[in-house]
Amino acid sequence: MPAGFALPHRGWLFDLDGTVYRGEALIPGADDAIAALRAAGRRVAFLSNKPLQTRADYARKLTRLGIETGEDDVINSSLVLARHLARLDGGAPVFVIGEPPLIAELRAHGFEVRGDHRVRWVVIAFDRTFDYAKLNTALQAVRQGARLIATNPDRTCPTEDGEIPDCAGMTAAVEAVTGRTVEVIVGKPSPIILEVALARLGVSARDCVIVGDRLETDIVMGKRLGLATVLVLTGITHAGDARIADTAPDLVVSSIRDLVR
Amino acid sequence: MPAGFALPHRGWLFDLDGTVYRGEALIPGADDAIAALRAAGRRVAFLSNKPLQTRADYARKLTRLGIETGEDDVINSSLVLARHLARLDGGAPVFVIGEPPLIAELRAHGFEVRGDHRVRWVVIAFDRTFDYAKLNTALQAVRQGARLIATNPDRTCPTEDGEIPDCAGMTAAVEAVTGRTVEVIVGKPSPIILEVALARLGVSARDCVIVGDRLETDIVMGKRLGLATVLVLTGITHAGDARIADTAPDLVVSSIRDLVR
Repeated sequence: MPAGFALPHRGWLFDLDGTVYRGEALIPGADDAIAALRAAGRRVAFLSNKPLQTRADYARKLTRLGIETGEDDVINSSLVLARHLARLDGGAPVFVIGEPPLIAELRAHGFEVRGDHRVRWVVIAFDRTFDYAKLNTALQAVRQGARLIATNPDRTCPTEDGEIPDCAGMTAAVEAVTGRTVEVIVGKPSPIILEVALARLGVSARDCVIVGDRLETDIVMGKRLGLATVLVLTGITHAGDARIADTAPDLVVSSIRDLVR
Repeated sequence: MPAGFALPHRGWLFDLDGTVYRGEALIPGADDAIAALRAAGRRVAFLSNKPLQTRADYARKLTRLGIETGEDDVINSSLVLARHLARLDGGAPVFVIGEPPLIAELRAHGFEVRGDHRVRWVVIAFDRTFDYAKLNTALQAVRQGARLIATNPDRTCPTEDGEIPDCAGMTAAVEAVTGRTVEVIVGKPSPIILEVALARLGVSARDCVIVGDRLETDIVMGKRLGLATVLVLTGITHAGDARIADTAPDLVVSSIRDLVR
């Protein structure tokens, strides 16, 4: 008997950490759920705000955990930033507060990544190598007219050892010393990342589901653009969270596994 | 004939950079003006928001430029922070986002300066060695209950090579990732630094003048506490600045030299 699904939609977007896996461990049944969706002809892609790994890294991790995935099925904030900036100012010289995978993605999209302030854009990301010298280069760039764009708005990133500072720390430092506000943040809950994902799946918003563990990003963004929204309780949000009723996802399931009947 | 002064007050507080010197160059006549005030029995001290040098460093610099000064006549944000925190939580373990002169001042005041997050306070300052590891330690400390205090609110610091990021950058990064607001900023325009200065001079606010080049710190703070205020035009504020009329210093002079007739 073929599997039945909780929702009839053709496109399925899955958040990664807290939804498909937690750290290095697959959420039990995630592999079977994804396999069943694919076998039924549903289109599946994965969404992440993290610019720390390449899409190929995420694809390899998913494959290693039992969900065979190519890098084109992974949409992260690095890719989305590079695509969005390519439309705004293709090939521009940029200074990057970010790690090598983001720099590689920008170079692959034709940007001139520079180490000094003679740029048209300062790209701000989650950067574990952030330091005063980078902050100063960003300031000098802005004083000469450079504009600001960032990958994601997250304050902290959960890791197996606890939360660590995320992109909001770098963004706030640059905004404070320059007196400017970042013009665009492409990651969740921005519609920009969702539009890239829908284009990848080739489905409309109303024919797509987003499945995630964070109310303020995955669910809020999905509702705003008219997707069906599914909250899983395997990540940061717990069943007793009063905000669940306020945010009102279309479906709340204890795990990704419950999407397949 | 003895010198005449623009104002009759007994206490005189001088901002340093932009008022007494600019970078390594004395403002012409500053040495004579200070010498005349001292010769007439006026009490003189110097105020700086910068925690990058020790008070002894500032005293040596002033002496080298022709204004003989002991370190007790210099009040900077490091000293004021150490004194203020000593009253709030004397001897507490602290983590410092700051440079060695601030750390030395805190140790001299009896604080246990630690390199990890097991502290009761995170001290935030202008720190040219700021990096992600420090930001992360601050986050972990706050998550375990540590409180936040900062030296100064300045966005940027003018140098001979242009403006560079100041304490506001470090403060904003910590506030963004922790979700907390710094409880106390001791430097100008806080009344805290002014109270330490008045105590040092042994004069009341109404018997004291503050002389500085910044409307939003020197002049605003002086007016708020009832000091006489003198704006000099040798620093960041120029004669045509529309904010001069709004802030309304008691006296505007082109240079510190004009204080002595």
